[in-house]
Formats: sequence, C-alpha cells, structure tokens
Amino acid sequence: MKKLAVGIDIGGINTAFGLVDEQGEVYAESVISTRKYPLLADYPTYVNDLSEALHTLLESLTFEYELVGIGIGAPNANIYSGMIEQPANLWKFSEEETNRDEQRRFFPLADDLSKAFGGVKTLITNDANAATIGEMVYGNAKGMKDFIMITLGTGLGSGFVSNGQMIYGHDGFAGEFGHVIVERDGRACGCGRKGCLEAYVSATGIKRTAFELMATMHERSKLREIPFSEFDSAMISAAAEEGDPIAKECFRITGERLGRALADAVTVTSPEAIFLFGGLAKAGKWIFEPTAHYMEENMMFAYKNKVKLLPSGIQGKNAAILGASALIWQANA
Amino acid sequence: MKKLAVGIDIGGINTAFGLVDEQGEVYAESVISTRKYPLLADYPTYVNDLSEALHTLLESLTFEYELVGIGIGAPNANIYSGMIEQPANLWKFSEEETNRDEQRRFFPLADDLSKAFGGVKTLITNDANAATIGEMVYGNAKGMKDFIMITLGTGLGSGFVSNGQMIYGHDGFAGEFGHVIVERDGRACGCGRKGCLEAYVSATGIKRTAFELMATMHERSKLREIPFSEFDSAMISAAAEEGDPIAKECFRITGERLGRALADAVTVTSPEAIFLFGGLAKAGKWIFEPTAHYMEENMMFAYKNKVKLLPSGIQGKNAAILGASALIWQANA
Repeated sequence: MKKLAVGIDIGGINTAFGLVDEQGEVYAESVISTRKYPLLADYPTYVNDLSEALHTLLESLTFEYELVGIGIGAPNANIYSGMIEQPANLWKFSEEETNRDEQRRFFPLADDLSKAFGGVKTLITNDANAATIGEMVYGNAKGMKDFIMITLGTGLGSGFVSNGQMIYGHDGFAGEFGHVIVERDGRACGCGRKGCLEAYVSATGIKRTAFELMATMHERSKLREIPFSEFDSAMISAAAEEGDPIAKECFRITGERLGRALADAVTVTSPEAIFLFGGLAKAGKWIFEPTAHYMEENMMFAYKNKVKLLPSGIQGKNAAILGASALIWQANA
Repeated sequence: MKKLAVGIDIGGINTAFGLVDEQGEVYAESVISTRKYPLLADYPTYVNDLSEALHTLLESLTFEYELVGIGIGAPNANIYSGMIEQPANLWKFSEEETNRDEQRRFFPLADDLSKAFGGVKTLITNDANAATIGEMVYGNAKGMKDFIMITLGTGLGSGFVSNGQMIYGHDGFAGEFGHVIVERDGRACGCGRKGCLEAYVSATGIKRTAFELMATMHERSKLREIPFSEFDSAMISAAAEEGDPIAKECFRITGERLGRALADAVTVTSPEAIFLFGGLAKAGKWIFEPTAHYMEENMMFAYKNKVKLLPSGIQGKNAAILGASALIWQANA
C-alpha cells in the first residue's frame, strides 16, 4: 500500500497542501485561502475548513494508501509545542477585541489537525526549517550531515543541520539567521531592530538597495522608470541580464553582504554546503557569483575552498509542500 | 574497580595530564614540557616521553583501576581524523628543513597514544571543545541539550552544543566563533584577517583596547604606568576594582562587543545558556554585566530574556584536564 504524507504550507495569503510519497512525488494538491480567516475568532473555522479540504483531497485518490502523517510549514511555528506562536500576520485581534492578551494567540494546529485525522502524527515548524528538511529528504542535501539552508523570499529564513539533525534550539526558534545584525544602526527591519541581514539580503532587501543606488549612482537605468510600490526583485535580475549598471551593482552589494555573513556562519557549524533557495536564488549567477566570491574572500583559512555554495534541488511550485511533507519522512527515518 | 579516564591538555608551553573519574575527581596529575619538543622531528620523542610519563602516573596509583580511555585537548586537533593538523605553534619545520610540505604536519596523536596503551579508546579535539564537553559532563551545563561555551584565554574559543551533541561540523573544525568578523577592516587578527571577535574579546583583545583607550581618553589611570610588554588583562580587573576610568570603560567596550556577537550567535542555535570560561571570565561582574546588558539590548525579540549568561562550573587549575577527560565519559554515555 502506498505510504503518503500530507504537506501543508501556510502563508499569509494562501494555504497550499498536497499528498506526497517518500520519493517526493506529489499525487494531488489543492489550496484554500488563509486571508479569508484573518481574526483570532476565525481560527476554529480555518482548522475545520482546512481539515475538510484535506479529507476531500484524500478521497480524490483512486488507489489504496496509508496516511503516515501530516507535516506543516508555517510562520512562527514551534516543533516542540506544535503551536503557531503569536504570528504577526495570522489570526489577529479584531478592532473590537478588548482582551488583547498575546497568550491567547498560541494556536495548537498540530494537535487540532491530528485529531481531525484519527490522531495521525502531525509535525509543524517554520517554513525555512521545512525547506531545510525538504532539501535533506528530497533535494541536493541528501546524505549530507552538516549543511545550511538560506531561503530568500520576502525575508531571509535559514535552517542549520548538524550531525544529521535540524538545530531547533532550546525553545524551537533556532535558525533566525536573517536577524544577525550586519550594519550597526542600519536599515529598519520588520523585527523592530536595525541593520538585520534580511533588510539587505531578501527580495525586499535588494529592492531597498536598488533605490539606495538610484540615489547614490548617476548612471542611466531602466529601473529609474519604476515606482517603489510597483517594483519587485525579478525586475532587477531582468535589468542585470541587459547589462543595467545599477542592477549589476545591486547584486554585487547583495552578494557581498550575504557572502560576508555566510563566512561568519561557517565558523559556527562548519557545513559541507550552503544552499540558496527562493525567489532571489532564481537570479542564478547574479546572486551566486558575488556571494561565493565574498564568502571565500572573508573565509577563515581553516574553511577556505571547502564549503560548497549550491542551488536548492527542490525549487519549483511544490517546494513548500514538499518541505512540509518531509518533516514526516525525516521523523520516521 | 574504579574506572578512570586520562585527560591531557596540550599547550604551547606545557602538556598537563591527569587521571579523572566520572564524577570529575582528579586522582593524580603531572606535567611535561611541550616547548622541549619544538620541531617536526621531535614529535616521536614527544609521544614517547608523554606515554612514559602517563605510564608512570598510572603506576603511582595505590588502588585497582580500569583505564577507560584517553581524552586530549590540543590546538588544531580534529576529532574525526584523530590528528593535530598543521598547528601554528607545535612541531614546526626547522630552519634547515628544505621539504616544507605542510602535509607532513598532520600528527596522528590519538592513534599513537592509543597504541602505547593497548589500543584504549583515545579521542582528541581542540581545547575549547574539550572545555565545552567538560561543562556538559562535570559542570553547569549538566542536563542541558543546547548551550554555547565561550573560552576567553589568549584568544576566544567556542563550542556549540545542539540536541545534546557537540557541533564538530563537516570537517571537525566547527565552533571558531572567535573568528566572526565584528569590525570591517578592524584590528589585525592572528588568523591573518582583520576585525575578528578575538582581536577585541580575549585577554589579548582587552589589552589592545586598554592601549587604544589610553590614546583616546584623557583621564588619569594607573594603567598608564605599565608598558605594553608587561601588561596583562588581570591588571585591568584590578584597576577596575579601584574605580579606574580607563579599566571600567575597557570592560564596557569588551562586553559590548561580546554581547552583540552573542546576540547574533543566539539566532543560529537558540541556546538555553551561554557559559563564559577562562581568565577574562574571572573578572566576574566586570565582564558579565556589560556582556549581559548588550546581549539583551541586541537580542531579537523571540530570544529576549530567555538565554542565561553563566560562569563555567569547572573553572580552576584542572579545568583543561577535566575537559579533555570528559571526551571519554561523553563518548561512553
């Protein structure tokens, strides 16, 4: 009988989910809106609707299967507690809510979904950790015991694997490498502090760099035609391909920041490889070349020319679902 | 029958060793010179003399014992290979040596000592890792699964423990946190790069800070009476106790550098506690207070007020021997 795991990827806008086997083949997938359930009071309905959609998806299968478990990737998710803990953009207090006790915003999603599926093993962690385990189970980190995953989306997420195990840390929140401070009193970061790596290296960060360079450089650039509010990081790759000087400098600076930070990260865990994943990683050589260059330039001699900088092997539309489902296969390995 | 492990601490000047039980009691200890064997060609004699000294020490015991293993802490030691790899200050080429192939400077000390003791389990790692495992086996990290050890000696060493396991990394050289770069184009570091943490935070680093402050501050200070070549970091603690303004600022700045760096380290491994060990840690409140202050000030919200900053529980003259012997008890646990 085919063994399947559910993989669920919860984003602020949509919740995508799929049925995945141990080789990473996706047999069925679907999506519900997350945004339709914005408030604390909406959470029970969200769980209910998500369970129903999952049951429907499972019933669509035309072969016999065994459901081995449910893996979930979600912001602020804690693998130890099984909860989504005080997420910034999910299930918020309504305007009318008077009891704004943040302790009420711990959502036991792993338990709630497990109950809806007869007590099946259900694991939850943040999306960067899920991507990391996905890389280990299905991707280019197969067989590696020590590696670092960097996910470059709206923010910069990370996952560290040592001795073949995910580093979750004492409280489940390890691997927030986007929040090392790389510039004292630097750019404002969403976390409330200043100068965090993700304020420079992420889809948002590189966009901010582009606008900084439009101020400091005088070269002509097509990027100058696009207002900030309509700008996205893919436009910088496209412009770089056409030789745009601002776009090219944008990637050099971004790679410099990332490469320096990775040279520091290597001193902690001494990985075999570092993977880049996510939208900005799709810029290919534009981001890989300067990152590798500055990483090596700043590397301590003991690590020089030893650490591979590689693209993720599970890029693509299903990557987040795959990553989430991998939680189950890794736990059973 | 009493089970004993040998702990050996190899420094540039002396090699100290002792016989230790699982509770950390030291039954006998001794020392030989390391400096007496400076050259590559001296290594076999060093191994021979060390083995003899160990046999003599074991023969001095007046009770029955079982030798469970030999643990060694040494610079550039690699737990995977069992070798001391290209140490900067041990067993160097002689002036006359023409074949200066660095591949010849890999010293298989674990195997060599094991053979001299009937094949007993012999493990070797660097001194900071040995101190880390010592803390876990005998010290204040007992029962902790996630912690960081910072050793403040001539340099800054570190050890990271996650999921109850030492992070050795892909090549055995993880945990070189003294070599994260905290100041771009900053102070020259012994590693050949610039601005490494240990150039600021270590016995040597704080001494450099003292001399920088004598240049930038105008306050009177007893420290101004001492030439650089006679200066040591204990003099700064003594001066701080007497209210010396330069000494106090020296600790504030050092704690600021260390606290900021630790806040970054926490984003990687999210530890339960961070331990400070070694000479500079003996300055007590002078180093702990500013370090804790700046660590919390720079901590990402998810970790704020969660991570304990603690003194090592195995300070004292035997700490390095204890740490080395702990390798054996931890491997057998």
